[in-house]
Parts: sequence; structure tokens; C-alpha cells
Amino acid sequence: MERVQEFAKQNKVWRSFIGMGYYNCHVPHPILRNLFENPGWYTQYTPYQPEIAQGRLQSLFNYQTMVADLTGLEVANASLLDEGTAAAEALAMCSRFNKRKVFLVSDKLHPQTIACVETRCEAMGLKVKIVDFSSETAIEKDTSAVLFQYPDTHGSIQDFQSLIDKTHAAGALVCCATDLMALTLIKSPGEIGADVAVGNSQRFGVPLGYGGPHAAFFACKNNLVRMMPGRMVGVSRDVDGKDAFRLALQTREQHIRRDKATSNICTAQALLANMAAMYAVYHGPAGLQKIAQRIHHSTIICAKGLEAGGHVVRNNQYFDTLKIKPSIPVQDIKARAEAQEINFRYFADGDVGISIDETVREKDINDIFSIFKVDTTAEQVSQNQDVLSSSLEHSQWKRTSTYLTQPVFNSHHSETQIMRYMKSLENRDISLVHSMIALGSCTMKLNSATEMLPSSMPEFGNIHPFAPVNQAGGYHQMFKELEADLCDITGYDNISFQSNSGAQGEYSGLRAIKAYLNSIGETQRNVCLIPVSAHGTNPASAQMAGMIVEPINTDKAGSIDLAQLKAKAEKYKDRLACLMITYPSTYGVFEEKVVEICDVIHQRGGQVYMDGANMNAQVALCRPGDFGSDVSHLNLHKTFCIPHGGGGPGMGPIGVKKHLAPFLPTHPVVDPHPGNSSQSFGVVSAAPFGSPLILPISWSYIKMMGARGLKEATQVAILSANYMSRILEPHYKILFTNQRGWVAHEFIIDVKDFKRTANIEAVDIAKRLMDYGFHAPTMSFPVAGSLMIEPTESEDKDEMDRLCEALIRIRHEIHQIEKGQMDPVRNPLKMSPHTQEQIINSKWDRPYSRELAAFPAAFVRPETKIWPRVGRIDDIYGDRNLVCTCPPMESYTNKDSDSVEGVAAARA
Amino acid sequence: MERVQEFAKQNKVWRSFIGMGYYNCHVPHPILRNLFENPGWYTQYTPYQPEIAQGRLQSLFNYQTMVADLTGLEVANASLLDEGTAAAEALAMCSRFNKRKVFLVSDKLHPQTIACVETRCEAMGLKVKIVDFSSETAIEKDTSAVLFQYPDTHGSIQDFQSLIDKTHAAGALVCCATDLMALTLIKSPGEIGADVAVGNSQRFGVPLGYGGPHAAFFACKNNLVRMMPGRMVGVSRDVDGKDAFRLALQTREQHIRRDKATSNICTAQALLANMAAMYAVYHGPAGLQKIAQRIHHSTIICAKGLEAGGHVVRNNQYFDTLKIKPSIPVQDIKARAEAQEINFRYFADGDVGISIDETVREKDINDIFSIFKVDTTAEQVSQNQDVLSSSLEHSQWKRTSTYLTQPVFNSHHSETQIMRYMKSLENRDISLVHSMIALGSCTMKLNSATEMLPSSMPEFGNIHPFAPVNQAGGYHQMFKELEADLCDITGYDNISFQSNSGAQGEYSGLRAIKAYLNSIGETQRNVCLIPVSAHGTNPASAQMAGMIVEPINTDKAGSIDLAQLKAKAEKYKDRLACLMITYPSTYGVFEEKVVEICDVIHQRGGQVYMDGANMNAQVALCRPGDFGSDVSHLNLHKTFCIPHGGGGPGMGPIGVKKHLAPFLPTHPVVDPHPGNSSQSFGVVSAAPFGSPLILPISWSYIKMMGARGLKEATQVAILSANYMSRILEPHYKILFTNQRGWVAHEFIIDVKDFKRTANIEAVDIAKRLMDYGFHAPTMSFPVAGSLMIEPTESEDKDEMDRLCEALIRIRHEIHQIEKGQMDPVRNPLKMSPHTQEQIINSKWDRPYSRELAAFPAAFVRPETKIWPRVGRIDDIYGDRNLVCTCPPMESYTNKDSDSVEGVAAARA
Ligand SMILES: Cc1ncc(COP(=O)(O)O)c(C=O)c1O
Ligand SMILES: Cc1ncc(COP(=O)(O)O)c(C=O)c1O
Ligand SMILES: O=C([O-])O
Repeated sequence: MERVQEFAKQNKVWRSFIGMGYYNCHVPHPILRNLFENPGWYTQYTPYQPEIAQGRLQSLFNYQTMVADLTGLEVANASLLDEGTAAAEALAMCSRFNKRKVFLVSDKLHPQTIACVETRCEAMGLKVKIVDFSSETAIEKDTSAVLFQYPDTHGSIQDFQSLIDKTHAAGALVCCATDLMALTLIKSPGEIGADVAVGNSQRFGVPLGYGGPHAAFFACKNNLVRMMPGRMVGVSRDVDGKDAFRLALQTREQHIRRDKATSNICTAQALLANMAAMYAVYHGPAGLQKIAQRIHHSTIICAKGLEAGGHVVRNNQYFDTLKIKPSIPVQDIKARAEAQEINFRYFADGDVGISIDETVREKDINDIFSIFKVDTTAEQVSQNQDVLSSSLEHSQWKRTSTYLTQPVFNSHHSETQIMRYMKSLENRDISLVHSMIALGSCTMKLNSATEMLPSSMPEFGNIHPFAPVNQAGGYHQMFKELEADLCDITGYDNISFQSNSGAQGEYSGLRAIKAYLNSIGETQRNVCLIPVSAHGTNPASAQMAGMIVEPINTDKAGSIDLAQLKAKAEKYKDRLACLMITYPSTYGVFEEKVVEICDVIHQRGGQVYMDGANMNAQVALCRPGDFGSDVSHLNLHKTFCIPHGGGGPGMGPIGVKKHLAPFLPTHPVVDPHPGNSSQSFGVVSAAPFGSPLILPISWSYIKMMGARGLKEATQVAILSANYMSRILEPHYKILFTNQRGWVAHEFIIDVKDFKRTANIEAVDIAKRLMDYGFHAPTMSFPVAGSLMIEPTESEDKDEMDRLCEALIRIRHEIHQIEKGQMDPVRNPLKMSPHTQEQIINSKWDRPYSRELAAFPAAFVRPETKIWPRVGRIDDIYGDRNLVCTCPPMESYTNKDSDSVEGVAAARA
Repeated sequence: MERVQEFAKQNKVWRSFIGMGYYNCHVPHPILRNLFENPGWYTQYTPYQPEIAQGRLQSLFNYQTMVADLTGLEVANASLLDEGTAAAEALAMCSRFNKRKVFLVSDKLHPQTIACVETRCEAMGLKVKIVDFSSETAIEKDTSAVLFQYPDTHGSIQDFQSLIDKTHAAGALVCCATDLMALTLIKSPGEIGADVAVGNSQRFGVPLGYGGPHAAFFACKNNLVRMMPGRMVGVSRDVDGKDAFRLALQTREQHIRRDKATSNICTAQALLANMAAMYAVYHGPAGLQKIAQRIHHSTIICAKGLEAGGHVVRNNQYFDTLKIKPSIPVQDIKARAEAQEINFRYFADGDVGISIDETVREKDINDIFSIFKVDTTAEQVSQNQDVLSSSLEHSQWKRTSTYLTQPVFNSHHSETQIMRYMKSLENRDISLVHSMIALGSCTMKLNSATEMLPSSMPEFGNIHPFAPVNQAGGYHQMFKELEADLCDITGYDNISFQSNSGAQGEYSGLRAIKAYLNSIGETQRNVCLIPVSAHGTNPASAQMAGMIVEPINTDKAGSIDLAQLKAKAEKYKDRLACLMITYPSTYGVFEEKVVEICDVIHQRGGQVYMDGANMNAQVALCRPGDFGSDVSHLNLHKTFCIPHGGGGPGMGPIGVKKHLAPFLPTHPVVDPHPGNSSQSFGVVSAAPFGSPLILPISWSYIKMMGARGLKEATQVAILSANYMSRILEPHYKILFTNQRGWVAHEFIIDVKDFKRTANIEAVDIAKRLMDYGFHAPTMSFPVAGSLMIEPTESEDKDEMDRLCEALIRIRHEIHQIEKGQMDPVRNPLKMSPHTQEQIINSKWDRPYSRELAAFPAAFVRPETKIWPRVGRIDDIYGDRNLVCTCPPMESYTNKDSDSVEGVAAARA
């Protein structure tokens, strides 16, 4: 912790007026303490088991509602990684929708957004034209969509009406990057005709964190919903007809659709989306508008003062950001600003950018005036009667439509209320504070309090991603040490921290491979071999990277079919770009021929991508770099302890061998690898170093464990998986053990046969586990009809024994069905999970007892019982009757902010 | 928050080796985050409703068990305020027990302990002789007890065997101040024959905080238990025969026994006791012993090095503390220490004291060597084979008895385990994160996250109470501002921060009054008039202050009987010391004649003590000082937002008029009022400024609210009480409204009649409220057969409406009983609260439905339901069969750390 304090001291928190999509904000302390810092909100990798994740799902649903309402669009997803990738996803979606391949993209987007979009489109064969929409622009027949920013990166609010009309007339779509705070005052994208809106919700109460993590939002019209990337929470109903949240339209996603998925997005930014949603719940529509108004009025005062002082304000209409042509030398301004520890945006054309945010105080405006040598004060300017006549309230932009009228956004404005609301959602769900979450392939391990502390420190939280690098000395020292440690752990030579998820890491790694191949003249190489056991993100990423995916089968033991691999490698030897393998595989086996496999590929001119998401089975025991792999990503949110709030945050840094280093991601504002980026393939994330605020977690973990501790952790993780598999072996079929019967750090139990013998499926076992207080292991991935169990080193023997006991008892119930001792339909498995409503009903007509339903083992006691919030959810009903945002106020019969009852009404 | 940061910067955290009962320690981060910083642990003023406080009670029970085990005594209480007052309580108890009045007190106690003891005894007519027990001491027939410290303040471990034998032979008792960490290595006080042990549990993971809050412990032999001061958790059983925790032997306490109570202690240090208990749960006996061994071995190395360098170590046998006679000038040592930002203890005799603690690193020992100009290193010293031959392991002191063998202390040693354990206890209880706790007279208001943040900052946490004042500049600046604000709020001239609770404030105020009266020659004045409506602490404090209590009746409206007051004042006019009144009174009325009342007293030479615990009804509206009162205490843990963890912490500063200022508490180590303390009556607390770590809470509250906000809060608090009283008026009898029908900030509903009409008592209503998810209002205080409701300004209308609805529905059930529509015995009131076991039992033979029992209103929904952990508890059974600590391991049949099942076995 002392080292962390030193890093903190080396970060200099200057006052930022930089803007560019990142703003200072007040993180409400109750949200900081009861959500961000509360392990009760650190939970499943993904809320796959909605009956015990209604709290988190409700919060994400609030997020979607907030985004849809503010953007004026019909549907929104539960977050994406950042504004840059969200914009790229938007264009990709448009192209999927209208099968066109040209985009007109405004030159007044934030530079990092343009860079992300260009990088993504390049690989997918999509063409991006950067244009100035303020001059007349023709929309051709091949134009898929236009993309502009509203308000734009200079702060101006432009009139896009004729552009939008023309675009629609040409059969193309309109995408709009925007700012939620501005949208509380100005007409929404939906109202001006946009089909898609994207942006960053950071300023809704999430710290800057030198770039992240923050939740990007994505909203669109209803006709696009089935093509929308990312996860979406929807309302369905449970067996009792009660409304219930669950992930909607999962068939769009890579874990189901593989290479036909809408995107490779898996981990997004759930925890941060929850924070932003709570910010809106806490402030409510009136509160948000008041905050926005204060920002806007302060900006006007700033503008008027600067104008009075002879400077030129370039913006006609603006919300919070000004582009100033100074009447005095910009070097003088910069020097004075630095003396006062203030950062502005400095444009190449000599202009200065100033963005005002909710933390603005009178003194800030006066400081700006003095830096610009303007001889007035904020108070003097504001005394002018007319000063606010130019405000947006009096403009054509004024927003007249309502938003956030739903009860939930109008009921929790005191700290007491928001605290109770958050606690009540927290306590609806099973999280790591209750019991183990043995989600195979997700490495749900302890996120320790010590590791989490730095993320709350202002010295880490309050640094703008584009602040001069010398103000982030602590961060850069930490990057250096973490890079060294990760290289040591993986056997690679360099690390890029830019990717915000495992899938983004895959994408980055593949792009680096492709760039390297191009650089040695092998431009034709574009075939990517991927075993069928791979995580769904692999093929999706390969496709996004412009590669052609060739599947490789596995043998009975779960290993790669070496013969087929050799055959395909040989077949495609001229076009072979790479192989993507996972080690140990998602089947939970250590591929014994991994060195030979790498050789097969290298001999044919290909590169090897080793998915490092399962590093928890390798750390300090073996290293991908030593097997011959060229690049891997690491899921810091699995192996290295970054917590998940039900779908993010994450960090997916990649490690590469030296020859790939020159091709790693770069950034248009802050070069992450100064002097070594001219051959970079481009830009993956909006921020140069991904999500630095959570890197201290992984850094602390590694430092506190030390080499010995890390090795022990890996050994215990493997030992635990083997312990559980041995206990369960007499009762269940264990798939894919090695020749000596061992598994790696996770293992798969095969339950397919029960369908035939007892009409029981994996899902029945998963739901019945809820009655025992457990979150099910990973279901039917990567093998259909299976459960994949990963205990991790964080769980003790007692806890593993309890999960084993639950599974064995369930097996016993299956036996009873098989033997006809239990009803084939009305049995506790098929009818699980059991809710309080069901059990406490006077009427109980099931052939088994209330006790067996609710307290099926001695360790399930009233004081530890976690009740599923709803009964079994009907997924199909929900997808047929899609409701992905709260209906407005009017559809509620009673002002009950905590129910989704109104939803059904709205749907009817 | 910026101001708080400034204060933080002005506090200089030097390395402390001062000791004297306060030690640096590592606060385990999971405990910090999930208990100390978690509002789920901020709860009732006192766990009066045990069925919904089993989590907290279990933790306090763990604390008692830990204390009893480590001290080797049979029973322990749930904490006292600090070591000094605990020692004073010990002597008072001995005197109650054997009716003797002389104490022999070691001169080698910490000076603050001696001072507290002397101050307390003086007023109670008890005689303290300070003696050096190392010379032969005779025990006379009038000796009540001896008190020594083990290890003593110099660090030495003395052999008290012959003293103990002599003392017992003379029919006197043996009291021992001690240190829990040392007791993991040396024989326990119980083993050497002590009857009572006291001390501070701070070093078990609670920050120094410049003096507090920390939990003092108090343990004694079984024969003293019914005279033991403070609260004690015991095991009883519920209606179903299930073991259940609840406060035991409450009849000892002031709220029941009034002036015959064992002590005036009410608020103690529950939250801190919980932290210390969790520290022991987390580390377990082996972990604690390892920590103690490391401390001890480091101390030996330090001693050997200093001796090798020519310094004299005064101690023969020691644990962690050395008294050194330096061979070089002490000024040089001090100068070098200061240059290195290190604090030692400097004795008047020129010796230097050094205490080592669990945070010690090799560098610390080397720093000490260099300061003492010793030319060796810790490493060199430790290479000497013999160095540890003088350790306690090889001495007659070595502890051979086991401790903490119970499952709970041997099951939660990983962060995952301790986190789940804490969360599971948290979620058993109703706290402020669930619903309003309308405990009249307790002002359970929001403890906001912003106010709490500073208490976690190392700049506030890591300062030793006896560090030079100039290192605590931030604290002193804050004291100054808070004093000014509180003077402004109360109308007084000066504030003393020394008292750690309301009751301690009363005691201090009365002692100041007495000292003032003595100073003007009115030594005979010792009568204290107290209305019968007063809080039980008032008469108890008066008695402790050596006053004679004369009760004053109240009239029907709840106001003081003015005629009687005048008569008694007149009757005692020569002996009248003071009147203690509460305004607004505990009946919830604003005494309309308060100014006249003060005059009556003043005219007869008395002083007025106004109990300021109800300031929440006055702040910014009126001021005790303006009515004519001379002194008041304030419960910062009520009005000014310090959270309660089920019985502490608290702060009860007193405000006084100018003429009383010279008599305020002083301190033997750090004078709290330099230049103005020669007439002080003495010392109230072990630390000069009480519990500074929690003062930022009250400071922030006042600063954030501002004058306007405070006034609004008071108005809303009063308005809310009146709102609820108007809603409930048609259904219940409201006691003591004023002539216009208004109440103050709280009100009383009278339920006495229901006993006659329906056999329903207040307790039935209280328990039935649990089924609705509510903690009952204050029951039968200050009026028998009543409920006193205080909503505070933190609760919104919806929440108040829910509580009203619950009460109205309960009234309706009472109607049904009255009308014979419900069984007079087997009804949901008499059989409440309802547990899951009862409801989910296949067998349900009650004449009302499961639904009515568990979900009695629409707002009680499964997702918000808080289940009582046990059914109604049988108090009498528990007091007859007292079990106040966990039995040792052997009595458990199964290793289930989370149950109290073993208890019954042990009892049988
Ligand atoms: C093997 C494997 N690869 C890739 C991923 C994708 O990582 P992310 O969710 O961070 O995009 C996962 C996620 O669990 C995984 O298990
Ligand atoms: C009126 C009154 N006086 C005194 C006290 C005693 O305060 P404490 O619990 O801090 O000792 C209380 C406690 O609630 C009170 O209500
Ligand atoms: O807790 C009280 O004694 O008021």
C-alpha cells in the first residue's frame, strides 16, 4: 500500500477543462461506497441466471431506460466499452442492416472516435470518408450511414436537419455521437431523426480514471434492435406470470452465434453502467437538468467574458464547450495555465478548447479569465441582464420532450432513499459475498478490499486521459512495472494496455499479426484456424479483423485434432495467417502437444494466438511465450482480480513477442508507445491505456502475492478443480480428463443423458442449484448439455463440499425421477427455482414438500437462504414481446418505483 | 471535502512508539470496508429487539467470548468506553460487592487510568491509595480491591502472586488492567487469580484515531456478573426452543434500575467491539499468537541492541514495551527522533519508553538503534543464537492454556470467508439500510457516506492520542471550528470534547457544577432534582457525581410539575446543587415554562443541567443557553450523525456557560485546555479529546448543512413527528401533546389499554412490527405500556406512511381480537415475529394464514422481506440460565461456526 501511495503522489491532479468526451464529475458518495466499493455488487461474469440477478438486471434496465429516454430512441443496450468502439459498432451495424459499405464521418468527431472507426472499418472492408458536414454533402447510393457528433468536439451544436433528410432519402442511416448531459437541455437525437446514438456515460458520476473504465451507451430505433451489438436486458415473465428481467435476444451474441454474431463484445461495462444509472436515479430528471443548466450557464458566462476581453468564440451555439481563438499568444496562455495547474485543450490551429463540467466553481471561471488576461469576473459578467439570452432555453434546440418520468427516477433523491434502493437491489442477487460462483471459464475469484482501495483515491480517479503524460507519472510507473510483471508471467516481450476486454485483446492481437504479415509482404494471409472448443469471441474477433475462420475439430479427450490441424494448415499454407488456441482449453485440458501445434503453424508461415483468458491455470507454472505462441491477451478481470459487476469492467491487455511490438495499438492524442508506433495497425480504444483506474487492482494482486504466492494460487486452483472432480466423479460423467484422470483448473460434467432418462436438462440443474443458494456453473458451454465448474483458489474446502453436496443431492433427485419415485414433471427440479410466493402460499399442491423445495440441505438455513426473486423465466416469451426500457410514468397504475408491473401494461 | 483534506494535511503522521495503551495496528481491509465503512452495520442505538439483531448480537457475543478467553475469566461485557473508565467501573463494582471503600492502586498503571480512577472515586466517597506494589504492601480490612497493570505501563511483567494471595485472604478483590495481545503469550489474569480484568481492545484492528473510539473490555468472575456494569449479550431460547442471542440481565442497567443501576453506562463502543472481534475471527488464535510473537521478538531484539550499545533496559521481563535509561543525553535522542519523525515516550525521570506493535518492520528497529547511536542492526542482533532465550516462551509467564478454540475463531481466515461471514451477519438484521428505525429518544438518522469518509483517512486514523499537539494541527483546527459551531448552536461559551457518551457528558457536567459550587464555598450543595420523565442515565450520573437525587413529578401533559418543583427547590434551597431537565422532554413536549423553571433554580443558588440529547428538536430554532441553562451535553451520535453499531460509538461533549469553563475536564498527559485547567474537577476519559476520529462526521454534517440546512432539518424533524402523530391519532392514543395538539420531534402512543381489551402489550406490537420489516419504536420508555416514535428528518413521506400503515393494520388486528374475531392467544400478534422455519413448515395449524403472518401488507414483498432470524425470545429463561460466552470447541457436535447450537449442549 505504501508503493501505491507513492504512485498516487506522482500523479498530479490538475484542473481539467480538456473535455473531448471526458469530464470531471461529482461521484455521489453513497454510490461510491455502497455500489462501487461494495463487494455485494461484484458478481457474475454475465447475469446468465436471471432469477438470482434481478437486482443487477433491474439496474442495467434502468441504464437502458435512461439512455433510451435521453437519446429519444426506442432501445438501448446495457453498455459497450467506450465511445470510440460504440461508434465503430454503430457503423458495422448499419452495414449489416443495409449491406452498404461506405460511411461519411464528420471531421468534428472526437479524434479518438475517428481513429477507432477508421481502424475498425479498414479491416472489415468498409470505407470511411471524413467530411465536413457544414458544407453541402452528397449522399451516394453506396452510403451506408452518416456519423456526426452532437454537440461536436469543438462544442458546437450544428443543424443537421437537411443532412438527415438527404441521408434518409438515400436509404442510408444516421448515427450520432452525443452527450447525455447536453441531452437534458437540447432536442434528442431521436427527435432530430437519428437512427443510432452512441456516447460515453462517464460524466454521470464515474471518475475519469485516466481513461476508464466507463460505460459507453448505444441506442437505436426499434427496427435495428435485432442487429444491435452487446447485451440487452429485457422484461419477460416467470412461470407465475410475474414480470422478470433477463438478457434479451441472446441469439445475437457471439457465445451463441459464433462467427455470425453481431459483434465480438462479451465483457462490457456493467458496473459502471450501474453507477451511471444510479446517478440518474439519485438526481432524477429535474436534478440532472439543474446540473446541466449550471454547466451551461457557467459556459455562457465564460464565453461572454472571453469575448468581452477580445477573444473570439468560434462556436455559435454550444452547451459546455468553447473553441477560442485567443487575441493573445497561446504560449502565454499555456504558461499561465500551467502555473495555475490547469489543463486546456490546445488545438493545432492555435485555438484553445475549454469544457466546463458539474464541478465548476466561480473561481474556475475567474481563473480562466485571468489566464486569458480578461479584466472581468464571473460575477460581473453574470450581472449583465442579457447574458443568458443566448442560452439554449431560448434556442431552436431547446428540449421540450420529457424524459425519465418513470417512478424509479423520481423516488430516490435523498441519500437514505438511494442507499436503501441500492441495498435492496444488492440483496436480491447471489454474489461472491454469498457463495462461490463456479462459473467455468470466468475465474470468479476474490476481489480483495486492499486491491480495490486505490481505485477510490482521487489521485487515480481525477486524471483526464489526455492530460500531459508528465502529470500521470504514478500511472506510467505502474504501467511499467505491471508490463514487466506480465511479461515475466507470460513469456512475452511487450504489453499493450489499450484493450478493455478479452475480446478486444483478441481483436488487437489479430490485427497486430495481420499488420506484421503485411509488413513482410505476406498480405494475402488471412485464414485463421480456430478449434470448435474456442470461446465464441475468438471467431467473432477473427472476422472483425478481416480474417476467414476455419474450424478445427477436437478429439474425444477434448484436445485439438492434430491430424486435421496439420491437414488444414497444409491446405491453407499460403493463406494461413494464424491459429487461435486456448490453453488450457475451454474443455479444461492442458493441450499436451501445444509445442508441436505451434510448430505446425510457424512452419507454414502462420502466427499463433494463444487465448490467455485461462491464465489462472498457468501463472507461475508455465508461459504461453515459451510454448511458441506469438501473442495472447490476458483477462485481468479473471486471473488478475478485477471485479465484474455482471458484465464488466474488464481489461484485456495483450502480450506479444518482440517482432509484433511495432504493430501494437497507438492513439491519436497520446502515443502509448512513443517512438515505436509508426507501424501500428491503428487504434482499438478511445483511451490510450484502456481503463487505468482498475490496473492498480492487478498490480496490487501481483505484488502482494509475489512469485511464490502466484504459483501457490495456480496450484491450489488446479488442485481444487481436481478435488471437486474426484468428489463428483461417482455421481456425474466428467468430460475430458487427461490420461491420468486429471483436469486443469476447471472441468465439465456431462448431463446430456438425463434428458433421456429423466427428462432433466442442464437448465433444470442450474435452476435447482438456486434453491441451494448457488449460482450455477457455466451452462452448456463449450459443450451442449453440460456444466463447467471452476472453483478457483479463493474457495475453501467447506464451500466446495457444499456445492458438491448440492450437486450430489440433485443427482439423487434425478435418480428418483429415473426410478419413478418422483413425478416426471411436477418435481423439484423441473419446478425450480422456488420463490417465497410459491412456498408461502396457503395453497401447496405439489407432490413434494415445502421444506424439500426451499431447504433442500442442512446447510441451507433460513439465516443464509437467498431467495430467487422470481420463478423460472420464460425466455422465448420475452424475445417475442420485447420490452427493453421502462415505459413512461403514465403506464404505471401505482407509483411503485420498485416494480416492473407497469411494463406489462405498456406491452398490452 | 476540500476543507477536510486540508485538516488531514495538517495532521502529521509520525511513527509512534509511545504505547501507553494505544498501538499502531493493521486494520484488515475487508473489515474496514465491509464493517466499519458499511452502513449495513450502522444500526439501532441498542439492540433492544434481538429477533432482528442476531447478526450484531452474535458479533458482540464473539467479542465477549474473545475477552473472556484471553483474560481467563468467566464473563465479559459487550464493551465499555475506554480503559480508564473501565478501571473506574471495576473499582466501583468491587465496592458494591464487598461494601468497602478503600482501593490500593498501582503507581504503574497508565497515568490516564490513575487519573480516571481518582476522579471517579473522589465523588463517590471512595478512597484511592497509589502504591508501589513492588514493595511489601499490607492489605487492611477496609480495602475493597487492589488494581494493578499487567504488563505495567513501563512494560514490565511483575509477579503479583503474593499480593493476590494476601488480597484474597483479606477478603478483597483483585483487579487487573491488561493487554489482549500480550495475553496470547502470557498467563491470563484469571490464571494468576484476578477477579476482574479491564483494558483497551484498540490494537485488535481499530485505528488510533487520536484517542478513539475504541472498545474497552471488562471481564470478571461469575460471582460478580450480576453487578457487572455495561451491556452483556447472552444466549436464551426462542419459542421454538432455538438458541437466540439477546441482551442479558438488563435489570442491572440504568434504563431499568434508574438510580440503583450498576453504572450510568448506556452508549458504549459496539461498532468497535465488532471490529476487534472480527479481527480475532479473521486471524484466529494461531494468527494472533504469531502476531504477538513477532511483536515480542522484535522488542527483544530492540532491547538487546540497546543494551549492547550501553543503554540500560529497566525491565526484567517484558512483552512489547521497554523503559530505557539512555547512556547519552536524552535531548540528543529526542532531536534525532524528531528529525526522523518518530515519537517515543519521554519519562520525567529522563528515561525513554519504547513500545513495539504489529506494524513493526526491520527498518524501525534500525532507526531506533541509530537514534540511540547504537552501532548494530536488527539483523546482527538477531543472528545471536541466544537472543530469544529471554523470551516469554521460556519464562514462568508462558501461557499454556488454550483460547479461542471455538469454531467461529477457526473458520474465517481467508478474505473470502471473513467477507461472507460479515455479510451474513449484516443481512440478518434490520438496519438503516432497510427501513426507518423510529426509536424515540435515539434520533436514528442518516449517517451519510460523505461524513464518514474522513474516518477512513490515515491522516486522521494513525495519530497517537499522546503525540505532541503540533502534530495534530488538523484535529485541533477542527476542534476549534466544531467548538465554535456547537457554541453557536447551543448558546454556550465553551465546549469540552472529552466525554465519550451522553451519560459521560452528564457526569462531566454535574462534576463541573459541583466543582464550581465548591469553588464559591457552597460545598454543602449536593441535591439534584430530576423529573421522573428523565432518561435513566440522569439519576445514575447524578449518583456517580456524588449527588442525592430528588425526583420531580410531571403533570398530565407530560410537563414538569411546577408547583412540586418550586416546593422541592424551596425545601432544599440550601443544599440544592442543580436541576437536570431534558428539553424537549423525553415525553416529546417542549416544556413551555422552561425559562421560569431555570429561574426557580437559579434563585435558590442551584445550577441548571439541560440534557441536550434531544437537540434534534432545537438546532437552529432555540438554544439551551438562552433559556438559562448552565450546562448541557450533546449526543453527537444522535443529532450530529455519528453512526451507532448497536450500542456505540458515541461522543457526548458538553457545553458550558463561562463561569463553569475553568472546571471542565483535564488530562494528565495532554492538557485539553492549556492555561485554564487548574480548577478542573479531574479526568473523565482515557483520551484528552474523547474519540476524535468520529468528530469529522459531526463537523462535516454541520458544514454541509449550513445554518439554513440545520434549521430546515429541525423543522422537518418536528413536522414529520407531527405528521405521523396526526395520521395515527384516529387509531391510537397519543400522549402529551401541547395545548394546540402538537408534539415535538417525537411522540408517544399509549397502548396500555389493549392489555385489558385484548391481552395485547407493547411488546406484542413491537414483535409484530418485525413481520412488517420494521424495528419497533422505543418500547415502554419513558412511559410504561407505550411506544415512542421519532421519525427524524431523514425519512420521507412514503416510508413514514408505510410505518403508519403497519401500525394501523396492527390496530385493526387488535380490534379483531377485541371483537372476538381473532383468537385471544393464537393470533398473529401474540405469535409474532414469524420466522421462515415456522412459515415454511409443512405443518401449519394456526387459525390465521401463512400469508397474513409473513406478508401482512402489500408493501411487504418477498424481495424486500427481512426475516426475523429467531422467534420470540424468552428473556427470563436466558437470565436464569446465563451463557455469555461461547463454550469451547469440545462442546460442539458439528464444526458449524455459524450456529450457537453448541451453547445448549454446554449449558446442559
Ligand atoms: C477463453 C476466453 N476467451 C475470451 C473471453 C472473452 O473475454 P471478455 O469477456 O473480456 O471479452 C473469455 C471470457 O470469458 C474466455 O473465457
Ligand atoms: C435524553 C437522553 N439523555 C441521555 C442519553 C444517554 O446518552 P448515551 O447513550 O450516549 O450515554 C440518552 C440516550 O439516548 C437520552 O436519550
Ligand atoms: O437508548 C436509550 O437508553 O435511550
